[in-house]
Amino acid sequence: MTENAAQNDPPTTHVLPRGIRFAGAVGGIKASGKPDVSLIVTDRPAVIAGVYTTNQIVAAPVVLTRSKTPTATGRVVLTNSGNANACTGEEGMCNAKAMCEQAAELTGCDAADVMVMSTGVIGQPLPMEKVRAGIESAAGKLGVAESDFLASADAICTTDQFRKTVSQTVSIRGQEFRIAAKCKGAGMIAPNMATMLGVLMTDAPIGPQTAQDSLREIAGQTFNRVSVDGHTSTNDTVMLVCTGLSESKDSQELTKDELAVWQEAATQVALKLAKMLVADGEGAARFFEVRVSGASNDEDAFVIAKTVAASPLVKTAITGGDPNWGRIVSAAGYAGPKIQPERTSLVIDGVTVFQNGTPLPIDAAKLSEKMKSNNEVLVDLKVGDGHGNASFWASDLTEAYVRFNSLYTT
Amino acid sequence: MTENAAQNDPPTTHVLPRGIRFAGAVGGIKASGKPDVSLIVTDRPAVIAGVYTTNQIVAAPVVLTRSKTPTATGRVVLTNSGNANACTGEEGMCNAKAMCEQAAELTGCDAADVMVMSTGVIGQPLPMEKVRAGIESAAGKLGVAESDFLASADAICTTDQFRKTVSQTVSIRGQEFRIAAKCKGAGMIAPNMATMLGVLMTDAPIGPQTAQDSLREIAGQTFNRVSVDGHTSTNDTVMLVCTGLSESKDSQELTKDELAVWQEAATQVALKLAKMLVADGEGAARFFEVRVSGASNDEDAFVIAKTVAASPLVKTAITGGDPNWGRIVSAAGYAGPKIQPERTSLVIDGVTVFQNGTPLPIDAAKLSEKMKSNNEVLVDLKVGDGHGNASFWASDLTEAYVRFNSLYTT
Repeated sequence: MTENAAQNDPPTTHVLPRGIRFAGAVGGIKASGKPDVSLIVTDRPAVIAGVYTTNQIVAAPVVLTRSKTPTATGRVVLTNSGNANACTGEEGMCNAKAMCEQAAELTGCDAADVMVMSTGVIGQPLPMEKVRAGIESAAGKLGVAESDFLASADAICTTDQFRKTVSQTVSIRGQEFRIAAKCKGAGMIAPNMATMLGVLMTDAPIGPQTAQDSLREIAGQTFNRVSVDGHTSTNDTVMLVCTGLSESKDSQELTKDELAVWQEAATQVALKLAKMLVADGEGAARFFEVRVSGASNDEDAFVIAKTVAASPLVKTAITGGDPNWGRIVSAAGYAGPKIQPERTSLVIDGVTVFQNGTPLPIDAAKLSEKMKSNNEVLVDLKVGDGHGNASFWASDLTEAYVRFNSLYTT
Repeated sequence: MTENAAQNDPPTTHVLPRGIRFAGAVGGIKASGKPDVSLIVTDRPAVIAGVYTTNQIVAAPVVLTRSKTPTATGRVVLTNSGNANACTGEEGMCNAKAMCEQAAELTGCDAADVMVMSTGVIGQPLPMEKVRAGIESAAGKLGVAESDFLASADAICTTDQFRKTVSQTVSIRGQEFRIAAKCKGAGMIAPNMATMLGVLMTDAPIGPQTAQDSLREIAGQTFNRVSVDGHTSTNDTVMLVCTGLSESKDSQELTKDELAVWQEAATQVALKLAKMLVADGEGAARFFEVRVSGASNDEDAFVIAKTVAASPLVKTAITGGDPNWGRIVSAAGYAGPKIQPERTSLVIDGVTVFQNGTPLPIDAAKLSEKMKSNNEVLVDLKVGDGHGNASFWASDLTEAYVRFNSLYTT
């Protein structure tokens, strides 16, 4: 497998799935003049699946796109940044539909086969003239070069500090299948709230319901296990596009075993993106993994890991490089799922600080230095004798986070 | 009713329940030399009830005291600050029992009738020599003067910035019953975690099970509705002491209707203390009330109010005086309980900013000024047509909070 992460320096080359054209363009939705319309167009009808925010307040494009997936006849994923088209009433739905219709016309497909996503400020009507200009411009630029892919990735960003793309190849039944993916950050809150958008693309042949189930599992293991501040936005969406147009022209769907291999690779791609989201969290100085073992089951382990990762006291301890076992262990204690206090142990960056319910004498200064020298701190928490395991990734909580998010100039 | 809140200036006079002596003393547990042992001793066997942390990691004094309440023969509430006696294994339980035995001997009662609470650093054995000296000193100072009550309140504080006491009288069946209460803060985290301790005292005649049920309801309406950072400590405890020794010597227990009157007064006392906890939250600049109405039921309203109040994005918006309806409404949307987005409206400090699912044009600068000029911001959120209501009080999230909690010097 070849791995390419866009945030690495020097830039690496992405291996792009066959059968997809990309474009990014400037419509003028963003006052900055940065790219704000992205198009992904498949050469032939493709399988497209989607998972969406669980927030009950949802933006119009989520409602519209959610009603179309999974589909076996998808052709376009259209995204605008700079305006989330959320909380704008009926006008929002009209605009979302109009975007699909324009993209369909320009790419020669049906509006039903266009998926639309939006991200940016909420509560303001889309500036449709600018949106239309952006879609028209993007449709005129579609291409298969890496620069086209990167342009499409740039055009979905809002206040991200760096572009987030990953690609990978995976060998199945003697063929090379490709996976490429882009996403934009949830750590960026200004001016109103965060949105996480992601698109996974592959040339592997996968059926619509299989793609939907697989995407749900992939997201559950990756995007649903990262957190900057725990806020679920009105627009969060992850899409999976499967063209089935690999080198061999063998379009027979992956078997269950073959799918497992593909899904493992796709999960690694998504996990890399998810970690980039956390690393790009607003004001984040350091990020950390909470690994929970010994819970009654995986779901319990997940809840405990998430609770520990969300605790402001744990986050600030990570910020300060403080091996504060008390905050971590007590967060596990109030998470909800049953734990065994007398069988609870904690290892921070390889050093056991708490064992079977009792703190151990440690060289705290040395461990603190170690934590501070790492960009990623590993919190390894055993909560009993069970077989439940889970990991969760989060950013720390810094003064910069508070400064950015409390800044308000009228 | 007479109300006295210790944080008011000038200092007011507390009306203390009959039949209780108080003391605070220095044992030397705190390196600062500040008072660290508090005694509350009833003249005769009293009803004592307790509610405790729901954390699964609990300190030895919680385990011990929890096993004794509710009781009709309680005599002493003994508290030490400076050391939480938590996560110290079997030695912790031995020490907690030894504290009870010493207090029993000095006050002439049975160890079973002594309740013990501890707060301070966790994971370190109690310095028993100092604890013993403190208990002995406190036992020699017991008195009924207001200064004794205040000394007992001071001695339970850890990093509180101000003492938290309230008293009130309530007239029932032609008699004056007294309620006095003290607590210490949950917003103070250093060096390891926060603990909230509280003691409500009254001379009203209330039976043990009634006292227990009533205390649970009171805490549910007050201490369980405030949050600084959402962390539930290993030691959180609220006790209720009822001497039944009011002016009339009429020791007949309050009837159900009479109890309701008493409980309403006691709830007001507890609510004042709870708000003081929030106002004293570490690094807190401003505090806010989230009032939710229109939910399916009160429990749903509570979950929504708590979720909105806990959101770092909402907290930082309050810090910045930002009337950010998007953060508030979307937090309600991901809280879990069913809401009606198209029937959701939001009023901030009297100004309607969001109505039936759509933002309203407002003078944001003016509202921001209003928010900034208030010490307490009111967030009034209607989530539908239901009859469920709840309030939750919280502190904002400031750079100072992060600074204090990430500071770690080895």
